[in-house]
Formats: sequence, structure tokens, C-alpha cells
Amino acid sequence: MKYVYKFSEGSGSMRELLGGKGANLAEMVNLGLPVPQGFTVTTEACTRYYEDGEFISPDIRDQVMEYLAWLEKDSGKVFGGADNPLLVSVRSGSRASMPGMMDTILNLGLNDAVAEGMSKLTGNPRFVYDSYRRFIQMFSGVVMEIGKDEFEDIIDEIKHKRGVALDTELDVDDMRGMVDRFKAFYKKEKGTDFPQDPREQLMAAVRAVFRSWNNNRAIVYRRENDIPSSWGTAVNVQSMVFGNMGDDSGTGVAFSRDPSTGERKLYGEFLMNAQGEDVVAGIRTPHTIDKLRGIMPECYEQFTAIVNKLETHYKDMQDMEFTIERSKLYMLQTRNGKRTAQAALQIAIDMVNEGTWSKEDALLKVDPKQLDALLHPTFEPKALKEAVPSAKGLPASPGAASGRVYFTADAAKAEAKNGPVILARKETSPEDIEGMIAAQGILTARGGMTSHAAVVARGMGTCCVAGSGDCFMYESEGYMTIKGVRVNAGDFMSLDGTTGNVYIGAIPTVEAEITGNFNVFMSWADEVRTMKVRTNADTPHDAQQALNFGAEGIGLTRTEHMFFEADRIGPMREMILSKSEPERRKALDKLLPMQVKDFEGIFTVMGARPVTIRLLDPPLHEFLPQQPEQITALAANMNISEQTLRERIESLHEFNPMMGHRGCRLAVSFPEIAEMQARAIIRAAVNVKRATGTDIVPEIMIPLIGDLNEMKFVKGIVQKAAEEELAGFGLKYMIGTMIEIPRAALIADEIAKEAEFFSFGTNDLTQMTFGFSRDDAGAFLDDYYSRKIYENDPFARLDQTGVGQLVNMACDLGRKGRPGIKLGICGEHGGDPSSIEFCFKAGLDYVSCSPFRVPIARLSAAQAQIKSKQ
Amino acid sequence: MKYVYKFSEGSGSMRELLGGKGANLAEMVNLGLPVPQGFTVTTEACTRYYEDGEFISPDIRDQVMEYLAWLEKDSGKVFGGADNPLLVSVRSGSRASMPGMMDTILNLGLNDAVAEGMSKLTGNPRFVYDSYRRFIQMFSGVVMEIGKDEFEDIIDEIKHKRGVALDTELDVDDMRGMVDRFKAFYKKEKGTDFPQDPREQLMAAVRAVFRSWNNNRAIVYRRENDIPSSWGTAVNVQSMVFGNMGDDSGTGVAFSRDPSTGERKLYGEFLMNAQGEDVVAGIRTPHTIDKLRGIMPECYEQFTAIVNKLETHYKDMQDMEFTIERSKLYMLQTRNGKRTAQAALQIAIDMVNEGTWSKEDALLKVDPKQLDALLHPTFEPKALKEAVPSAKGLPASPGAASGRVYFTADAAKAEAKNGPVILARKETSPEDIEGMIAAQGILTARGGMTSHAAVVARGMGTCCVAGSGDCFMYESEGYMTIKGVRVNAGDFMSLDGTTGNVYIGAIPTVEAEITGNFNVFMSWADEVRTMKVRTNADTPHDAQQALNFGAEGIGLTRTEHMFFEADRIGPMREMILSKSEPERRKALDKLLPMQVKDFEGIFTVMGARPVTIRLLDPPLHEFLPQQPEQITALAANMNISEQTLRERIESLHEFNPMMGHRGCRLAVSFPEIAEMQARAIIRAAVNVKRATGTDIVPEIMIPLIGDLNEMKFVKGIVQKAAEEELAGFGLKYMIGTMIEIPRAALIADEIAKEAEFFSFGTNDLTQMTFGFSRDDAGAFLDDYYSRKIYENDPFARLDQTGVGQLVNMACDLGRKGRPGIKLGICGEHGGDPSSIEFCFKAGLDYVSCSPFRVPIARLSAAQAQIKSKQ
Repeated sequence: MKYVYKFSEGSGSMRELLGGKGANLAEMVNLGLPVPQGFTVTTEACTRYYEDGEFISPDIRDQVMEYLAWLEKDSGKVFGGADNPLLVSVRSGSRASMPGMMDTILNLGLNDAVAEGMSKLTGNPRFVYDSYRRFIQMFSGVVMEIGKDEFEDIIDEIKHKRGVALDTELDVDDMRGMVDRFKAFYKKEKGTDFPQDPREQLMAAVRAVFRSWNNNRAIVYRRENDIPSSWGTAVNVQSMVFGNMGDDSGTGVAFSRDPSTGERKLYGEFLMNAQGEDVVAGIRTPHTIDKLRGIMPECYEQFTAIVNKLETHYKDMQDMEFTIERSKLYMLQTRNGKRTAQAALQIAIDMVNEGTWSKEDALLKVDPKQLDALLHPTFEPKALKEAVPSAKGLPASPGAASGRVYFTADAAKAEAKNGPVILARKETSPEDIEGMIAAQGILTARGGMTSHAAVVARGMGTCCVAGSGDCFMYESEGYMTIKGVRVNAGDFMSLDGTTGNVYIGAIPTVEAEITGNFNVFMSWADEVRTMKVRTNADTPHDAQQALNFGAEGIGLTRTEHMFFEADRIGPMREMILSKSEPERRKALDKLLPMQVKDFEGIFTVMGARPVTIRLLDPPLHEFLPQQPEQITALAANMNISEQTLRERIESLHEFNPMMGHRGCRLAVSFPEIAEMQARAIIRAAVNVKRATGTDIVPEIMIPLIGDLNEMKFVKGIVQKAAEEELAGFGLKYMIGTMIEIPRAALIADEIAKEAEFFSFGTNDLTQMTFGFSRDDAGAFLDDYYSRKIYENDPFARLDQTGVGQLVNMACDLGRKGRPGIKLGICGEHGGDPSSIEFCFKAGLDYVSCSPFRVPIARLSAAQAQIKSKQ
Repeated sequence: MKYVYKFSEGSGSMRELLGGKGANLAEMVNLGLPVPQGFTVTTEACTRYYEDGEFISPDIRDQVMEYLAWLEKDSGKVFGGADNPLLVSVRSGSRASMPGMMDTILNLGLNDAVAEGMSKLTGNPRFVYDSYRRFIQMFSGVVMEIGKDEFEDIIDEIKHKRGVALDTELDVDDMRGMVDRFKAFYKKEKGTDFPQDPREQLMAAVRAVFRSWNNNRAIVYRRENDIPSSWGTAVNVQSMVFGNMGDDSGTGVAFSRDPSTGERKLYGEFLMNAQGEDVVAGIRTPHTIDKLRGIMPECYEQFTAIVNKLETHYKDMQDMEFTIERSKLYMLQTRNGKRTAQAALQIAIDMVNEGTWSKEDALLKVDPKQLDALLHPTFEPKALKEAVPSAKGLPASPGAASGRVYFTADAAKAEAKNGPVILARKETSPEDIEGMIAAQGILTARGGMTSHAAVVARGMGTCCVAGSGDCFMYESEGYMTIKGVRVNAGDFMSLDGTTGNVYIGAIPTVEAEITGNFNVFMSWADEVRTMKVRTNADTPHDAQQALNFGAEGIGLTRTEHMFFEADRIGPMREMILSKSEPERRKALDKLLPMQVKDFEGIFTVMGARPVTIRLLDPPLHEFLPQQPEQITALAANMNISEQTLRERIESLHEFNPMMGHRGCRLAVSFPEIAEMQARAIIRAAVNVKRATGTDIVPEIMIPLIGDLNEMKFVKGIVQKAAEEELAGFGLKYMIGTMIEIPRAALIADEIAKEAEFFSFGTNDLTQMTFGFSRDDAGAFLDDYYSRKIYENDPFARLDQTGVGQLVNMACDLGRKGRPGIKLGICGEHGGDPSSIEFCFKAGLDYVSCSPFRVPIARLSAAQAQIKSKQ
């Protein structure tokens, strides 16, 4: 098994084996660019390391030594030799770019003897000891996991003693002294001398890079970017070139286009007499790249030529590292550059205009998730980098928000006049709606991704972090605690609804802005894709929002939120607490005209586009009051005793509401509810068709079906009511079901005989298939990530192994039961790119997602289509 | 399509088409016994009636009329004719015997004219009007659904006026008067005259019998006896013979053996000058059958000969109806007789000894569910018949109990000295244990089949009804309400733990008694079966109980209940509320020696038999205090503030605990818990093996696995702890998992690579596959039964369509992943006969059930085996 490759043995196409960095180094060597020689230890060696129980087997070690010997011969230098020493850098490089996630060590190969010899050789002992102290610090941090801070303290102490501000002002003796103190500190911490054997240093560094594949940063990054943990990282060992050899040396990074705006111009910065990490560290302020033209014009010309060559070669914007050693330019890295969403669109459109990309290429080049940033405010990237989250909750509605926190809707509404506010509540209820509208962000301590706060916020496009268990709200007292820290009303907080992070303090935000580029780009996506994109919308406002974002229909209207509104909750509660059918019908009669109006509004906005309306789904107790005062009031209102009311409320209590008396089970117990809703839907459709002449085709969706008889029974009620309402009027309607119970997927052929369409409710299907509730899983999912049991949140990304098996089964069986059955998805996964690709492969007719995710879905559907052709 | 058969066209083998009664009448005709002629309308006609929307199609009606014409011709009488009228009985008869569940009408064909004619013909107008008034009453009740009580009131009034006590004392004029008043009452109720057209009467009666297939009684009976609703009932139309024609006439029922004891002797009773319903009604006291010998010796001889002939022919104890009309004996029905459990065993053993049955025949003849009655007290059947349930709960632990109710454990314990007591609680907790032991029955208002009350009661074999949502407990005030009715401490209540019925008032009970017959019979079952029967047992006491009932191992030891005991709950709570691993380990160190003792006790009882121990399963908050006083005490104990404790408790709150942080998820978050338990299991096994020399083979079961990585991770922890404990000591142990999450079934091939055994946790698997929680489903399952959506409780009888599909899938995949993998079931279904048959077919190695169900499982397993050979 070959575990090590010279750069010259590799190529750009060997990414999987050599990692991105290794493959690109090889490619640059093949292109004849000035790259210091070296070799790559493959990703397979990393995988093997983990298979062997985190151990580097002798055969890998032997191959590393063999290639090291070659590198010595090639460079004419000796690793660990005092006369003409070879120093190397050791860098990680995985298949996918994971910038800053894993570790790098420079100047490896230095020891006391080598430092002395090199000083003689270069006549520049300051440079050598500067390099040595850097090496000790990096090696200690990366390989030995000794904290960086103590080393920095030593440096500060020395600078303070010498009365200087910059490292560059320290002289050779200072550097020697620093090396001695670093080594002493190392010995104190580790109990052994700093390793003097360069080969021992090298293997320890390789091991450290392998290990860094599983550091926490890397695990989180992989989860957020859908990178499998099985890939592993390669290790690149490369001859050092030195940007810190004096004033004719330097180092820098550059992009072939502006990564913020996408503008076509060289963009970057550099430092003279410095090594790579100085540019990043920010102690000295780097120069912009164009300054290099004045300082070293030849190098600048050579560099710009290389930049052009690389962009042309790779056909994408490049992110490059370079070093100049004594006026000679070396390329250390190139890769496709990360870019903002705005830049991504600009570059895509420019590349197409320049003839470099086809439209399909362009569509594949933009990460759909990035589009979110164009639709919602985001944090300033720099400020965000420095911010430390105080708590975490569910990323219930994307975007960023920063403002003063208030704990009641009234306070939030009042204070919103004076600046941005965050509304923080234990959980929200319909009475909070004005405060929610006024707030830039909403935080709740309880409730899941489908809680009132989450659903309302997603509809409005307001940032929301829900169910943050670290937060305890003392609303009436006007404060909250986060892990014991008290936050008072009026204090600044910031929320990241995309990650679920909660910050104490203000973080500057950047407003969202939709440009012409966006519409051009999205129109390309629409040209390509065949899978439809619908939206989940409960109100005419949300429906209109989604239409603006390109939705082609409604895949899910939840009727329950309608009943929370102030004028309905009364009759709704009467209905729920009714003891007999006639009583219940009386209350339902009050609700019917309101529901008709709800649906008229939606049908009017949507016109002839398909609209799927789901019958009442949540358990009825969700609508009941919980506070003593509210119960007292309701009892008085209903003219019954408080004890009677309490007993009725208590009798509706459920241990596991998610698995309780909800969905079609309500229609089985109280057919008159389903009947009222069916009437309202059909009556509204008839009214709108009569008024506008538009053909309205309502799709009535029965939730939570798990049995054929259940489907038949509820369908019978709906059909009867619908036919009575129509009374012969010509209007087509469909009756279908959600597939969200595992049993429904298992018997989908039977159910399809009664259902005209299936919509996969993958939220519930995921919950039931995994056996955990989304609202509760937060308590343990982090443990699952950190122990590498799960790589992804199955509620964010459809689990193709388990849940996907049921979806595919249900699609196949469904088509068997009813050829040509209409298939869609309305769970949260309908807005997730990888899940959308799965849906496309499963042959779904459409995906449906919240309004602000419609653009993501449109692009993802286009990408899935393009990939399937390739 | 042929919908009607003459008796002489049928045979005993045509049960499916003709129903049991029809087939047996045909068979008796074929045997040459004296049976009044008639015909049977088939079960297919009933099915067709329902398919046609509860409507009898003209072709069925035509066939009935055709056979009626034949019957007229055959009898020489005319239906509706005044001169020589034909009267008929109309009786239901389904494929399976459902005694008393459906409807019967006698004397059909009578009207005013016929009555007059018949009076002349027989010279016995009193008999005729007696028959007529009976007919009006029955027809009104059965066909027109007019309440019986009003008719009885009229009879009582007439008897009162005449100053007599018995119907037989009324003369012809009284009967005429009664007929007139009955007809007047009918007209008042229905607005039309009592129907005078006999053909209209007949078709209405047929329709009523079809309809009675779906009355509530019948639906409940079918559910309890696993009879599909698709079968339908046949209708038998038979020439009337009259036991009320005078003192040379009579009617009776008899069994060929004693249905209570099984003793081989003719057993029955009869009444002279009476019709069938008089014997049942109990107004006149019937004679025992042997009295007939004195009254009508010839009839008696003829009858005993027929009884012998029928028992020999049917090879089973017969239950027969006969009528004597003017000294001539007629057989009206024969069927295999229902019998008590005690009689069932006696008859089985006698039949084998008599050479009539093989042992295998005998095993198939006894309903396994009947064995329950031998192990638990039951209500006196007669008293039970009259009792009306006041509420319903979950049948959490079988048996019957009657006594004074108390609402605290202390009161129950104190009052138990004075007589049987019922302990009623909102829900029980470990502190209630003494009261639970003292009580004959336990009732809870909340909690499901796996609640503390349910599990403890099943272990003890104490009757328990759990989670009766109709009951509201006011424990401190010393009363409860049931649907508004107040029940005070000290009032009598009765509980049926087999059905879940709750009664206000006392019902006499019959003690359980195990006889020698039981052991003989069960040994036959053991000779036959290959599938093993284990038990679910959490304590040495339960384990011993199960061994006495024939268990061959433990399939499930739940470790959680151990932690509720008084000396453990303290350290347990400390453990749960620990903030760090070291803190948690400190508390676990206290629990470890207790767990070791727990397991030593169980291993000592079980010896070399396999013992499966499940790691901690429930969410941790179940162990925490909820009452304010307890929280105050615990905070003081733990030396933390009450607010801190409250926040910690609140942070453990879950929306859906069933789908929360439980099972192996606890081991993922807190590996040290699993480690402690693994150590305790292995240490206990080593200790017992060292002490006794017996080979202990513990099976460590990881609950709630849904993912391969999860299994690997927890297995790793368990294995490491086990190996450390063994330190080379020779002891075999296995590590396996429960299959209770749908996803686990879907990826069982992968999981089997890591799991040495699977145990199907079909309680949870049913919950997840159906998407409803057992604790909450009570609120709607009754609606599902009454609307004929479900025929069975899927928690009582394994759903073979959905859940069964997953079980079969997991078995197949599991064997693929690990050939020969050990497979078992430990859900409640492990004690249900039809589910056990399913398990046998799926190829499971064993079923495991609560101790008192072990005999049922042994017999069911034997039956499954015998049936598979047939």
C-alpha cells in the first residue's frame, strides 16, 4: 500500500487521496510553478491510523522516512544536519477545504545543534532563533497541547523588559533567551526535554495532524458542511522557505477576485520579514497586495501572472499563499476561494459572461445554504469571530439579531421605538404577537422547532432561537439567567437564528440586500429544474412572501395557528371543552366563517397554484389556558365551576403530546371538526372561484394517518362535507395524507388506494423512526456529535439510511397502489440541500419549505437535476 | 351467488359460510336427529349487506322468499296463513361462538289474524296469545330498538291487578289484554301499527340480526376474543316448535359435562310449559335436568342418547338447547360448550384418558388466556354480569379485587387488617410500596402500562387498573370523583385488572387455585414446544415466582426499579443532579455495591439459566422529586440553593419523555452509569459463580439502540468495564440490544454485527411505529374501536401488518448480519397468545413475559408449534 506521494507524483485530480492542499501542490508543481518540494501522506494513512486505534503503523512510518530521505537528496540538505539543515512545514489538508480547522507546524527540524549550524550558514542568527522559538511554541501547542497563552506571556514579559512593542524589535539575544525560556517551560509542563530528534518531531507532528481531524472545531465544521468523518486528512510535508529571512523576504495571502464583493481584481495582503502566522495574527498590520508592486516589482509581476494562470487553470476564484525568500517567490498553496454570498453570485455571473462557466457550472458552484445570508441580516464576520456564545438553542428561524432584551411582549413593543430589541420568553403564546412583530430577534427557553415562537418567526423571517435550555426566564421580575449569569431587561443580547447561538452583549449586524444578480441567477436555476418548489405558509402574508421568493404553490398550510388568534381562541376553547357533539357543533359554527375567511385570503393570493391545507393537527390541550387567572376567567365565561374546568383540562393532559390525541385522531373522535374544516376549505374555494373566475384546486391533507381504515373513515367525512358544500358546483379538489408515521410508510400501497397524494412529514417521521422528540433531543444530540455517533442533525438533514429507507419504500408502494400518485415533502427537510437532492432521486414531484428557504430549494433542486445528468 | 341453504344442504364443515349454529343444525339433520326444518342465510349475505351500505339487496330477499316457500311446502303450513300457520324463529350464528352477543326473535309470523286462526287450530288460545305477546316484545326490542323495560312494566301492572306472581298464572284474557297494550305501546313509540305482514317481519328480523353484528357488545366481544369484524353473521330461520303448549311441553339447555368443574355427567336445567327465554330470565326457577327423567322418562332417555351421540360425534363437550312440544323432543342447537378454566383442564385430561383426544388435541382445545383465571382471583360470574363499570382504565395487572378504598398507602396498610382494601392514587411512587403490598387491588388515575404501579403490581401478581382518566383523586381530602360521582375513603370499590373496569361497590370474588391437573397439562405443553419461555423479573422474588410457573430464564430485568428503593433514591438523585463526571462517579460508587447485591440475588435464584439485564432505561427526571417539600429537603441535603435545584430539575424537563433522553442515550451522555452497571453485573456473576460453582451467563442488554455507532460506543464501554472486572476470570457474557426503535429494525443487519442478541421491545416499537404513546392512547382508542378502525389494541396484540413487518425485517436482516443470532421478545406481547404464535413463525428463540403470564406463554408456544405442523 502506497501511503506517501511526492508532489510531482500527484495531480489535481487526486483530491480524495492527497487532500485538497496536496492535490493542488502537485498540480502547481505540474504547472511548473515555483513550489518548494515535498510529499503528501495520504488520507488513507489517516483512515488507517484510526483503524489501528490511533496508532501510526511501522509501514507508514517507513514510507515517510523513505520520502524524507528523497527530500534530503533532492534539496541537498540534511534533516537534523547542523551544516546544511532541511527544515519542513507539516500541514493538514483534507478532501474538502476546512480552513483553520486543523493544525499546521512550521520550521520543523530545528533543534539546538541545527539552530547553531543554521546561524553560521545564514549568518542570520536572529532569523534562526526567531524561527526556533516559533517552532517550539507551535509544536508545543499543536502536538503537546500546551496552552498558547503562557508562551505569549513570556514574549510579553521579554518585550516589556526591553521596552519594545513589536517582535521585530527584539534582537538575537532576546530570541535566544526566549528559546531558553520556552524550552524550560516545556520541560516544566511535560516533564521531559523539548525533543531534539527531528524524526521524532516529524512523526509526532504527523500524528498530531491526524488527531486534529477529530478535534471539536473540525467535528462541528464537518457537521455544518456535510463532510463525512470517514474521509480523514492528508498531511503535507514541505521544505521550508522563509519569509522571515530579512527585509528582502516576506509572506502573504491573496485572492484572484474580491471574496467580499466578487469584483474581478487581485485582492490580498502581505508582510515583509514575517512568517505565515504573522499575517493572520494581526499584531502587525499587513500591506494590501498592490503595495508589493512598489516594493518588489518583479515578484509582483511574477505573482500576478501566476494568479491568472491558476484562475484560468482551475476555472475558479483562487485563494493563494505565497512566500518570498530573499527576493525569490514561492507558491505554498492554492485553492478555490471561500466567498460571501454576494460575491458568489457576482463571480458566478461574471464567469458565465466571461465564457468560463456554463450556466449549469455556475449553478453548481454556489452553495444553496449561502443564499440565506442574502435574505436575512448576518453578523459582521469579524465581530462574530471574536464573540463567544453564552448558550445554545434550536436554530428555529435564520438570521442574526442584536439589541436590548425584554421579557414581556409589552416591554418589547414599547422599547422598540428606541432601538432594536430582543424578545425573550419562557415560551411564546398568541398574546405575544405584537411584541414578536416589534422584535428583531426572539429567544425562548422552552419549545421546539415547531413551537409557536419558531413557526411564527419563520413565517415573518424574524431571527429566532428556540428552546435554549441554558436560559431560565424570570419574566415578571424582569431578568433571566444563563448558566448562572444574570441578564437584566435592557441589557444587550445577540441571537444567531442560523446556528442557535445566544450571545450576551451586542454584535454588529449587516443588513440583507437582494440584488439584480440574485434574480438573474435564480432564473437560471428555474430554467434547469423540473422538481417544483412550494412553500409552507399559514397566512396570506406568508404566502405572498413566498411567491416573491419564487414559490409555485403551497405544500402545507397549518390550520392550527389560525385558532390562536384573539377572536378565535374563545370559541376554540369552548369547542374543546364541550361535553357533547351538539355543544361542540355550536362552537364550531362560530369558527366556520372565520376559517372560510382564512382560506379565502390564501386562495386569493395563490390563485390557480396548488394549495395543500392540512386539517387540525396538534393535541387540543395546546389551546387551553394554563395560568390560574386564565382558568378562573374561562370558567366564569363558560359558566362552569373552576374544579370542573380543571378536571376537564387535567383529563386532556398527555404524557407524550407528540404521540397523543392529535392529527387524524382528532377527526376520528370528533368528526365534526374535520367536517367544519372541509366545509370551510371548499366554501372558500367556491367563493374565490365565483368572485375571480380562477380555478382553485384545494388539496385537503389528512395528517398522521397510520392505518387504512383510519384514512377511509376521515376521508369519508371530508368527502361528504365537501360534496354537500359543492352541491354540484364544478370545482376539483383532492384528498390526500401526510406520510409521517412509520406504519404509514410500511403500508403505503394500501393507503395510496384512498389517498390522491402523499406529502412526507419528515419531521415527525424522523422523530418516530429515531424514537426521539425534536423538542427533547437537544439535551443529548451534542453528546452524539462529540462522540462521533452522529455526524448530522437528522432533523436538519434527512437520514437517508433509516428515514430515507421508509421514504423510498413509501414512494414505491404508493406508486404501486396508485400509479402517478402526487408525491411531495413538507417537513423542514424540504429546505435542506442534501435532503432536496434525496427527494429528487426519490422522484418527488415537489418540495415545500418555509418562505425564506424557497430560493435555497430552487437552487438545490436545480443542482440535483444537473448532478443526476452527470 | 347462493345466499341461502336448507339445513339439509349444509354440513358441520360449512361453519364459515353458515356460521356455527347453522352448520351444527345441518350436521344434526344429517345425523338424523329430531330438528325442526329451516334454512340459513349465509355470512356472505351479511358481508354483502355491509358492502351495500347496510341494505339487503333484492337477490338476497328473493332467495329468502324462495326458501320460505320451500319451508311452507315442507311443513305443510302457510306463513301468515290463518288456518295452519307457519311460525319461525330467527337467530344469529357467526363462525365463532359469541353467546348472547347478537339477537334472536321467536314466534315470528304471528299477527292478529294468525293468532285467531291458531287459537282455533290448537284449541289453546292462552298459549297462542302468550306467544304473540312474547313476539311483540322481542320484535320491538330487537328490530325496533324499543326498550324492554316498558313492556316489563306493563306485565307487572297486569300481574299486580290480577294479584298473581308468575306469568303462568295469567289466563287467556290477561294475555289478550297484554297483546293489546303491547301493540298500543308500540304504536305510541313508533308512530305506526305493529307490522302485520309476516314477510315484512321476517326481512326486518334478518336485517336486525345483520345489524346486531355491529352492536357494541359484539364489537367488544370480538376484540377480546380476536374475532375479525369481516366474518359477519349468518341468520337461521327455523320452524317454531313450542315448549309453551302446555304441561306436556317444555324447554331446556344442557351440557354433556359440568361446565364449571368438567365432571363427566349430564348437566342442565329445564322448565315445563315455557319458551327458551324463560329459562334464562330466571323468573321461574328451572329444574335440574335429571328431574326430567321422572317427568318424561322417554324424552329423557332419548335426550341422553342424543347427548352421547353428539359428544362422540363432535369429540367435545356439548352445550345444547332442546324443546319438547307435546311430548315430542326437538333439538334446537348444539355447540362446543364454554367452560371454566378448571373445567377446561379436567375435560382435557379426561378426554385424553378416554382416548378421545391426543395430547396435542387437548393442548389446542384450551384457550391460553383462560389460564389466567387459575392464577388470579376472579369475580363471581353471576355477580359480574349484573355489575356496571363506572370507569375504565388500563388493564395493568390481571385479576379481580374488591374492598374498601383508601387514598394513601398508610391508610391502606392500616385498614387492611379489617378486610380487603383497594389503594387508589393519582399515581404511585416507591414510598407507596407497603400500601401496595397490603392492597388487594391498585387503582391509579395517571400512568400507563409501564408506570410504577403497573410494573410493581404485575410483579406481585396484584390486580391493578392504571391510568383511569375518569378518576380524579383528592388524596389529602380522602375522596375521589368518578365522572362526578364522589367516592369516599372506606367506600367499597371493585377492580378488574384483566379488563381495566372500575366498579363502585363490592363484587364477590373467587379465589385462584392451582390443581394437579394444571401441572399435568402444562407438562404436556412443555413436551411439545421448542420455543423457550422466559420471564420479565426485576427482583429475586419475581424471578422465583416465575420459576414456579415454569420460566426458563429471564428475558428482561429492568434495573430502574431498583433505584426507587428508599436506600438508593438518595444517591440516585445526587448522581442525576451532579454537574461533573467526578461528582457523578462519587454517587455511582455508592450505588455500585447495592446493584451488585441486586444482581447476586437474581443470579442466585436463576442459577445457570440465562438472565438478560437491561441497562438503565427511563429518563432521569423520573427519579427526581416533584413536591415542593421534597425539593426543599433535597436542596438542603445537597447543600445547594432551592433555586439552583429547581433550575436543574427544570432543565431535565421533557416534552415527550417517551422520546427523550433515555435508554442508551443516557449511556452516551454519561458513560459512567453504563460502566457502573456493567461492573455490577459482572461482579455479581463472578461472586455467585465463585460461591456456588454454577456457570452464570449474564446477557447485558443495551436499550433503545437506533444507530450502529451508538451500539459500538455503548458496547465499548460495557465491554471495557466487563473485562476489567473479570481480570481474566473465566465467565462468559453476552452483549446485545433491544430492537424497539423503527430505525433499528431497518438497519438490523448492521446492528447485528455488534449485537450478540436481539430482544424485541414491542411496547416501544408499537408506540413508534403507530406514532402514539401507550399512556395517551386510552383517550382515543375507544373511538377507534367503535368506528371499527381498529379491531384490537395493538399494545395487547402485536400488529402483524405494520409492527410485525418490522419484526420480520429485523429477524431476516439480523440473521444476515450474524448467522444464528439469538432472538427474543420482552414486550408485553410476549404473554399474548396470537402474538406468541407470530413470534414462533418469525423464528424467535424465546418469548419473555411477566411471571403470571408464563403459563399462558408455555401453552401458546406449544399451540403455535402444533399448528405449524398441521
